[in-house]
Amino acid sequence: MADAKAQKRQKFESVFPILRDELLAYLKQEGMPEDAITWYQRNLDYNVPGGKLNRGISVVDSVEILKGRKLTDDEYFKAALLGWGVELLQAFFLVSDDMMDQSVTRRSQPCWFRVEGVNLIAINDSFMLEGAIYYLLKKHFRSEPYYVHILEAFHDTTFQTEIGQLIDLITAPEDHVDLSKFSLAKHQKIVIYKTAYYSFYLPVALAMYMSGIPHSSTNDPYELAQKILVPLGEYFQVQDDFLDFATPPEVLGKVGTDIIDNKCSWCINVALALATPAQRKILDDNYGLKDKAAEARVKALYEELGIRQKYAEYEEGAYKRIIGLIETIPPEGAEVGAGDVRLRREVFKVFLDKIYKRQK
Amino acid sequence: MADAKAQKRQKFESVFPILRDELLAYLKQEGMPEDAITWYQRNLDYNVPGGKLNRGISVVDSVEILKGRKLTDDEYFKAALLGWGVELLQAFFLVSDDMMDQSVTRRSQPCWFRVEGVNLIAINDSFMLEGAIYYLLKKHFRSEPYYVHILEAFHDTTFQTEIGQLIDLITAPEDHVDLSKFSLAKHQKIVIYKTAYYSFYLPVALAMYMSGIPHSSTNDPYELAQKILVPLGEYFQVQDDFLDFATPPEVLGKVGTDIIDNKCSWCINVALALATPAQRKILDDNYGLKDKAAEARVKALYEELGIRQKYAEYEEGAYKRIIGLIETIPPEGAEVGAGDVRLRREVFKVFLDKIYKRQK
Repeated sequence: MADAKAQKRQKFESVFPILRDELLAYLKQEGMPEDAITWYQRNLDYNVPGGKLNRGISVVDSVEILKGRKLTDDEYFKAALLGWGVELLQAFFLVSDDMMDQSVTRRSQPCWFRVEGVNLIAINDSFMLEGAIYYLLKKHFRSEPYYVHILEAFHDTTFQTEIGQLIDLITAPEDHVDLSKFSLAKHQKIVIYKTAYYSFYLPVALAMYMSGIPHSSTNDPYELAQKILVPLGEYFQVQDDFLDFATPPEVLGKVGTDIIDNKCSWCINVALALATPAQRKILDDNYGLKDKAAEARVKALYEELGIRQKYAEYEEGAYKRIIGLIETIPPEGAEVGAGDVRLRREVFKVFLDKIYKRQK
Repeated sequence: MADAKAQKRQKFESVFPILRDELLAYLKQEGMPEDAITWYQRNLDYNVPGGKLNRGISVVDSVEILKGRKLTDDEYFKAALLGWGVELLQAFFLVSDDMMDQSVTRRSQPCWFRVEGVNLIAINDSFMLEGAIYYLLKKHFRSEPYYVHILEAFHDTTFQTEIGQLIDLITAPEDHVDLSKFSLAKHQKIVIYKTAYYSFYLPVALAMYMSGIPHSSTNDPYELAQKILVPLGEYFQVQDDFLDFATPPEVLGKVGTDIIDNKCSWCINVALALATPAQRKILDDNYGLKDKAAEARVKALYEELGIRQKYAEYEEGAYKRIIGLIETIPPEGAEVGAGDVRLRREVFKVFLDKIYKRQK
């Protein structure tokens, strides 16, 4: 089981060097200086392939489910390319987010802008991660009937993510704590726009286009997918926020820093909604400080307010709600005809099963 | 004459608030918080409309020439929208370039990242200027047969510009002078990729698509346009570099800082090519220093090397070469048929006339 997962990841990873080399070949062919080509290679290698790759691999998984069979080599390559497109988009966001947040490490290595000699060039480097997406799509998807749809899917979710990042940046600046700006409603907007669209809707929409699922003016399957995947992504991020507080570092694989970093997390917003004036004062006085003792006081108050129980209730509610949404898709038996390609519950169940009650 | 130009500019400017309000309406409709909407409005107003608008207006001018008649209101709006797309792209580049260069002012006001409270949020703000382009194109051009072509035109030139910016950044870092990295060949790559594609080819290509000029497998008019506009853009930037050195601030409208800022300018590359070992030492010792006396020594050497004369020769050569390229386009008399929309020499002559022997 773990082996199958590792194999799947390895196969997906093996596509990356091909795409990277296509990008570098373009720069070579345009007569770019050696040092610029080497720089771009380092940028790509350092920032794109080192993550969990869940988003990218989920494109491949979804195409397989939608087509209902193993993919040919060419189909696999194209699905993986779309997956790497999502990973490139994420790398674009992470490299720039780390600069805006002045973060220190990412994926257990220094953030790219902190690497010797990089500094502010990382801004342009992040652009070139985004730019790579459209170069690769043009090269491999130009003649596909769904080409313009995948371009739009990338455009739409990119803009949505940027809007989410804007709200996050002005609601929770790292260096100025003002909890009166926080609310569960704002938290919801941030997580949906900053995370859910690009991490959940985009991979599935790309897989749907590649599988030949058409848009429809009534009960559009893309709208239906979005109606399921946006709440799913919201649940994922709420859980992420909760794990940052509740899971010991040795299980989580990193040290949670949301309290110290003044993050507009689900936990603080629930706490604010429940706090008495005296408890609120404790939050105002201790949240967002670079101080382990202050962080401990906030954590103690979270426990006192029963955040763990609140989260358990939230998780059960979210799970049931999403199952209900998935069941609005006609079940497998209800095929319209042989070779019919349409939305399948399985696509969404796979996501939900990966997320439900995860510990890291 | 000056009045006609001012009127043309005013008409083009009057389209901007419509587009801005469409973008803000989208954020409103998505339920974004008031402070995020206000922030985006400030970002757009501060960074997009205050420049010379040559690039944007040249889209409108080119459509008029290609169609050979005045535009209808709807045609004007669409041409202006494409023009503002180029201006948004430029704003995306300028906001981020100013951060990477640590510049102080832009268009006689503080650079956006230096405005109180903005700082690193300017990175995401630059993204949202780029994101605006694809939102507006989707809203207004989706159903046009040339929609996918204008998307690709923006993608291609964006990536090219980013590549040009990368070479510029690693060739001429503001804080580390190493003239051995400079060369006229590298300078040419930088100006073509960083400036010529988005400033010259992109506006004309957009106008050609909107005018219904088709691609062709033999003598593609888009390739022909590129073959003229890339050298034209190169000439423009060489001239820009020369004016930075040679034109008095009261004529230029700003103080040239290329020598102090260690820019990979045409002037320094010509000087490097001509310098004796003793003169080379003067350049090595004085270029890129934050020191008016050092700058004066470099300028004196430029004069000694006869850069003014070299430039005059370059300009005459470039002018003749570009005229020659323009004349490869069949002349106006050679119409294929009534209503025939095809490339016209006039499009390129208008550009060349605006640039040739300009003083600012």
